[in-house]
Amino acid sequence: MVEQLRRDFAPPQVDVEEAGRIMETFSRGHSSEGRRVVLITSGGTKVPLESRTVRFLDNFSSGRRGAASAEYFLRADYAVIFLHRHRSLFPYSRRYSNQNWLDSLRLLPVPAGEEPRVEAEPNCLPGIVPVLEEYERMKGARRMLSLEYHTLSDYLHLLLAAARALSPLGSNAMFYLAAAVSDFYIPASEMPEHKIQSSSGPLQITMKMVPKMLSPLVKDWAPKAFVISFKLETDPEILIERARKALETYRHQVVVANVLDTRRSYVMVVTNTEDTKLFVSDKEESLGIEIEDKIINDLTSRHTNFIKQTSTYSQSNQGL
Amino acid sequence: MVEQLRRDFAPPQVDVEEAGRIMETFSRGHSSEGRRVVLITSGGTKVPLESRTVRFLDNFSSGRRGAASAEYFLRADYAVIFLHRHRSLFPYSRRYSNQNWLDSLRLLPVPAGEEPRVEAEPNCLPGIVPVLEEYERMKGARRMLSLEYHTLSDYLHLLLAAARALSPLGSNAMFYLAAAVSDFYIPASEMPEHKIQSSSGPLQITMKMVPKMLSPLVKDWAPKAFVISFKLETDPEILIERARKALETYRHQVVVANVLDTRRSYVMVVTNTEDTKLFVSDKEESLGIEIEDKIINDLTSRHTNFIKQTSTYSQSNQGL
Repeated sequence: MVEQLRRDFAPPQVDVEEAGRIMETFSRGHSSEGRRVVLITSGGTKVPLESRTVRFLDNFSSGRRGAASAEYFLRADYAVIFLHRHRSLFPYSRRYSNQNWLDSLRLLPVPAGEEPRVEAEPNCLPGIVPVLEEYERMKGARRMLSLEYHTLSDYLHLLLAAARALSPLGSNAMFYLAAAVSDFYIPASEMPEHKIQSSSGPLQITMKMVPKMLSPLVKDWAPKAFVISFKLETDPEILIERARKALETYRHQVVVANVLDTRRSYVMVVTNTEDTKLFVSDKEESLGIEIEDKIINDLTSRHTNFIKQTSTYSQSNQGL
Repeated sequence: MVEQLRRDFAPPQVDVEEAGRIMETFSRGHSSEGRRVVLITSGGTKVPLESRTVRFLDNFSSGRRGAASAEYFLRADYAVIFLHRHRSLFPYSRRYSNQNWLDSLRLLPVPAGEEPRVEAEPNCLPGIVPVLEEYERMKGARRMLSLEYHTLSDYLHLLLAAARALSPLGSNAMFYLAAAVSDFYIPASEMPEHKIQSSSGPLQITMKMVPKMLSPLVKDWAPKAFVISFKLETDPEILIERARKALETYRHQVVVANVLDTRRSYVMVVTNTEDTKLFVSDKEESLGIEIEDKIINDLTSRHTNFIKQTSTYSQSNQGL
């Protein structure tokens, strides 16, 4: 797997070793204070079609799910590693992603010679006071580490580095793999160097399957961690079956399954033993309640149980 | 062409008729005040691979070129229609796109019971005072109309609507086609409805050539307008040849040719009769001078000459 990463993918555009060291220090610090650590992956992945990339294959994802989830994990006192696609949505600021924030600023009149002052108009930024308070508290507590990726190659390399950094935490580590990772890619050796010329006629692309990182992650890289993957489908008919198949194949703990059209109000939390439906009613939505609040509430309880079980298991094993 | 748009592409996600009416009113108003109008297209295009889209083909483009250019056209007293990809960079705010703007805000202490106040820290937003002044002046003058597109289909439909709206302005209209438009697409009839399953093995994609809008735009839709297209290559060897070929094929006025790696400091302005090299030196860059300033300066002069020539030409024609 590691060999395939090196052979088939362009070198990452980020300093993965440095990122690994930073994640390790961050996780060790929080873990020593008794805090659990979650790695959140968020946003789509860019799959280049040319080595000097003009064109790429992408996955629909604004990063909204991951950014919102980070906020609820922070509220649940987790330390969060937020591994997200460059320019995807970010915790807290995501709430204002549909507006031009310059529209909320205005220059204050000041006497000549004084420093200029700029004020934000709270009416243009709904809920900004509690959001800013929470954001500043979170920054002060240094409980979130934010890392960016651009391409699929960056993502795969950083996920491996994260797994290695979190592995020492055992069952106190959670992997919340919400990024929309491409299933397909073009191996570096088969990629044209320059921009594909449109004058050459219609485009034929053949893409290989991306190696499933979940397999070695669960088996080898962080075998004691609590691992959640996501399954997005457009066809509700096949959703649960696909989620169950993923659990059988990768042997991790939870699949959060959702359908494209209803993903903001409805998900299924699928485990080996049960399916739990979570949804946000229209009334709850009007009160500002988000589905991620319920997802994180559900998963953190499951994580608590998972930690208890594994510690009971290892105690009884030691007792033998 | 219009027939092909209707047949081969999914219906646009935006209200194109309404957008057309708004563009027409905007252009007529400014034109009646003697102002020239430029349509700027900006950002990449999303080409869906499935009708309920999870995956799409995209083009490298942050929209920086188009957003910066809009500012310089506004300074040159043009009215600007800014047709840009959803979430691509926007004039003025583009200058702060690499930072989280929440980091620049802080809550001011106010006596209990008073309205909360939020101040922006000018030190965190370099140059914010002149930028805000210019932004507010521009908004007050209502000289920019901003329209968004998501998919390639949106883009093509909106470009047609824009051409029709600007056509009555004759040579006073400029088309500045900086968007990175896909050369390839999958016709709606050949597209799978649901998410392509990765379990079906490697992915084979065959994409058709996107119809070249430039041809009917120049010939039929806005035949008197001043039209600029862009040519981005990764291989400098073929750049000028490709630019010249485009001019011969579409018979428009200017190609701005640039190479991926050097696009921020160097472009060639290619016309039927000459190539003009524009570049920003290291010293100019350190002074904050941008290549778009030079491009717009060059093109607005050419536009002036173009208007003079066409009016001389039609006068002498009338004299016959």
